Amino acid sequence: MATLALATWATNLTFTNLTTPVIDAAVKSVYNWAGCAIGGFAQDAPQIALNTSVDLGFGGPPTSSILGLNGSTSAGLRLGYGSRNADGAFADAQLAAFVNGIASHVDDYDDTHLATVIHPTGVVASALLAIVEAESRNRTISGADFLTAFVAGVEAELKLGLSVYPEHYDVGWHITSTTGSIGAAVAVGKILGLDVDHLRHAIGIASTQVIGMQAFFGSMTKSFHIGRATQGGMLAALLARNGYTSSLTALEDQYGWLHVVSTRENASANFAELGKTWEIESNTFKPYPCGIVMHPIIDGCIQLRTQALSDGKDVNSVKSIDLRVNPEVLVLTGQTDPQTGLAGKFSIFHAAAVGLLYGEATPAQFTDQVVQNETVVSMRKLVNVTTDDSVSEDQAHVSIVFDDGSTLEKYVEHAIGSLENPLTVEELKTKFMDQVSRQIGSARAEKAYSAFTNIGNMTDVGKLRTLF
Amino acid sequence: MATLALATWATNLTFTNLTTPVIDAAVKSVYNWAGCAIGGFAQDAPQIALNTSVDLGFGGPPTSSILGLNGSTSAGLRLGYGSRNADGAFADAQLAAFVNGIASHVDDYDDTHLATVIHPTGVVASALLAIVEAESRNRTISGADFLTAFVAGVEAELKLGLSVYPEHYDVGWHITSTTGSIGAAVAVGKILGLDVDHLRHAIGIASTQVIGMQAFFGSMTKSFHIGRATQGGMLAALLARNGYTSSLTALEDQYGWLHVVSTRENASANFAELGKTWEIESNTFKPYPCGIVMHPIIDGCIQLRTQALSDGKDVNSVKSIDLRVNPEVLVLTGQTDPQTGLAGKFSIFHAAAVGLLYGEATPAQFTDQVVQNETVVSMRKLVNVTTDDSVSEDQAHVSIVFDDGSTLEKYVEHAIGSLENPLTVEELKTKFMDQVSRQIGSARAEKAYSAFTNIGNMTDVGKLRTLF
Repeated sequence: MATLALATWATNLTFTNLTTPVIDAAVKSVYNWAGCAIGGFAQDAPQIALNTSVDLGFGGPPTSSILGLNGSTSAGLRLGYGSRNADGAFADAQLAAFVNGIASHVDDYDDTHLATVIHPTGVVASALLAIVEAESRNRTISGADFLTAFVAGVEAELKLGLSVYPEHYDVGWHITSTTGSIGAAVAVGKILGLDVDHLRHAIGIASTQVIGMQAFFGSMTKSFHIGRATQGGMLAALLARNGYTSSLTALEDQYGWLHVVSTRENASANFAELGKTWEIESNTFKPYPCGIVMHPIIDGCIQLRTQALSDGKDVNSVKSIDLRVNPEVLVLTGQTDPQTGLAGKFSIFHAAAVGLLYGEATPAQFTDQVVQNETVVSMRKLVNVTTDDSVSEDQAHVSIVFDDGSTLEKYVEHAIGSLENPLTVEELKTKFMDQVSRQIGSARAEKAYSAFTNIGNMTDVGKLRTLF
Repeated sequence: MATLALATWATNLTFTNLTTPVIDAAVKSVYNWAGCAIGGFAQDAPQIALNTSVDLGFGGPPTSSILGLNGSTSAGLRLGYGSRNADGAFADAQLAAFVNGIASHVDDYDDTHLATVIHPTGVVASALLAIVEAESRNRTISGADFLTAFVAGVEAELKLGLSVYPEHYDVGWHITSTTGSIGAAVAVGKILGLDVDHLRHAIGIASTQVIGMQAFFGSMTKSFHIGRATQGGMLAALLARNGYTSSLTALEDQYGWLHVVSTRENASANFAELGKTWEIESNTFKPYPCGIVMHPIIDGCIQLRTQALSDGKDVNSVKSIDLRVNPEVLVLTGQTDPQTGLAGKFSIFHAAAVGLLYGEATPAQFTDQVVQNETVVSMRKLVNVTTDDSVSEDQAHVSIVFDDGSTLEKYVEHAIGSLENPLTVEELKTKFMDQVSRQIGSARAEKAYSAFTNIGNMTDVGKLRTLF
């Protein structure tokens, strides 16, 4: 009775059940998400999604924040930003959830649970903030309640992910969104105070919306997965609250989620471990805005560039770049000739080239312009990749050969941002400030940082958006 | 290049390509859908969906009809029915598409393409009418253009269904909605005038939203599948029009639709036959509002009741009812003890009981009240089912034994509503009038029948809703 077990656990979870490391991981996850959602709004994907929706639907009570929205855009003006929404809340909950979900993932800069390759926070937090802001018209919801519901949703999607990974991922599903809609339903259902049976129905309505395949990596549709799963999970909880019926055994039914979307024989959910081991403690944060399996290569190339410069060598005199990586790296990021910034985020060739040429990999290295830059294109053509099962996904071997025949080599044992080599609190702040300042200026970015890092102590999360 | 082939065919299709039988089948499909959507609105599912959405999101420009909405409901009042929407258009396109999609399927009374078990019209027509009404603010769209786009969408989903049936269905997907979002995207994309590449992106965004599993049959979530797929396909076309990018090879990509959702080895799309054979010509219409595999049993039981009565026998003196059916019948409709009207639609036991007791199977026999009625419950307990591979899905053997030991038997070779035994135009009208009169009265039902049967001749389909 997996569905019952999950609904019962989530319904009973209280803030006092959360350990200090869990709360710490949750807060980091939330502010890393907020930075991604604000900074990512600069991309086309969330803005097209917003404009499309404002034109044709999605314009209910303007209760909820679109985090990165700048009031001077045409959609912002049509939503009445700055007039009826002076407090910064300017879209209905469905639309805010959709757009924040897209924006938080579009840069491929969000968090990663490495054991499942799920990026857990985008779907859950985007749904939760939108609904908390909408609910705050009628009641106050504390930061403790917000974090409790958030952890419930994240643990739900991650335990579910563990139940079907890697088979489910290997067949081609985008596991972040396929599990995410269920996580969002659990989180929203919990904040709405659903009882166990209503939450089971919510899980059912969420689970029958299976969003996302890997064919869309490198296009705007990748982040659409997150936006749509966010919205679908939230809608599921809202419908269930109003008595919409579903299966009470949606996850374990012969024709339900576990069996239909997983190719694992006799798949069953790992819910006995809920609340005993906390998956959120294993959440990690990306230093580079691109597919995570490219990160060790970027580390290696940046280090080799530094070494080359200190040796008095010119990286423009490199004649070949040889990478040895885990086989999955080529499966996911094998695009040899990307044409857009989004496609560049899934090209190991591009990753190596910008690491060597720029010595960094920030959003600026994944624009259409840089991806199409002639020097970058030439450098990409020098990259050769071999795969090796003995190299894990957070490891890489990089060697470069210069025109004069000299070589430099680097072995990266654990990429920056991995569990063994995590971003520090200072690095997380730098990342947040970089993303958010670009979009809303550094003064507001500082306020936003304070607001999101302090979320656990708030008495009314509905007011969060007024703080920055 | 399946995605390219589909997009190219759909883009090039014109009304002059449609043969008379195709147009005839399309018009029947549309008015049968309209009857279902108006009549089905009486159910809880579409009304909860509407109320939930009005409360939290979905309230953009009120351009589009919710077909069965009665202005005196609270949601109708909140949407401003009767004041700002005196012409009968009263929700934004997203919401109208969602609710009409649910309403058109909730009674399990819609159409069926028997070769794939797809109910093809609900998703495509619900999306199309909503978007045509929204577009009609700016331009007129003729009935010929409406039907051309409709046929494009229906052929897309049905050819796709043939490409993956039965494996895709057997694993547990609800094939109507999993193919339907793609059909809706094709239809809406065509009416929006997308070029081939934009339509390929639309197909991509639609195909990554895989909605619906069989675990939810017998609950409101079954019709949610249709509403959400309707909306997802429409949103896909709207996003693509605005430049949202996706995969250009979404269907055939190694990690795209055909391979991820089908367990068929080397699945490929049957698109070479597009425009050569027309699947819509094989569309059929249901005489009974329930799972189609139960229809031959209902036929048989109704006939046996008639025979019993003419023989002077009392059906209340039946002591056992023996059914011999195709094995799939028990897989899909094996609920022995349903508790709700929606669950009764998937209980072969209930179907046999009401056929014998009432001599008919209309929406009135699938209410919660009738499903829980003691006499019906007792009769259900007398039903024994055996399965037989040699009996096809539109066939059934029924035999009843009376208390006095006498028996009656019936073999149904082709159920009413099957390809070999289709509903006549008169029967379709009777069905439409029955469904629609219950919801909006017989005078408006007559006008609605005229409006929908004449849709092919309209110069401005945006005005259709003003005709009744």
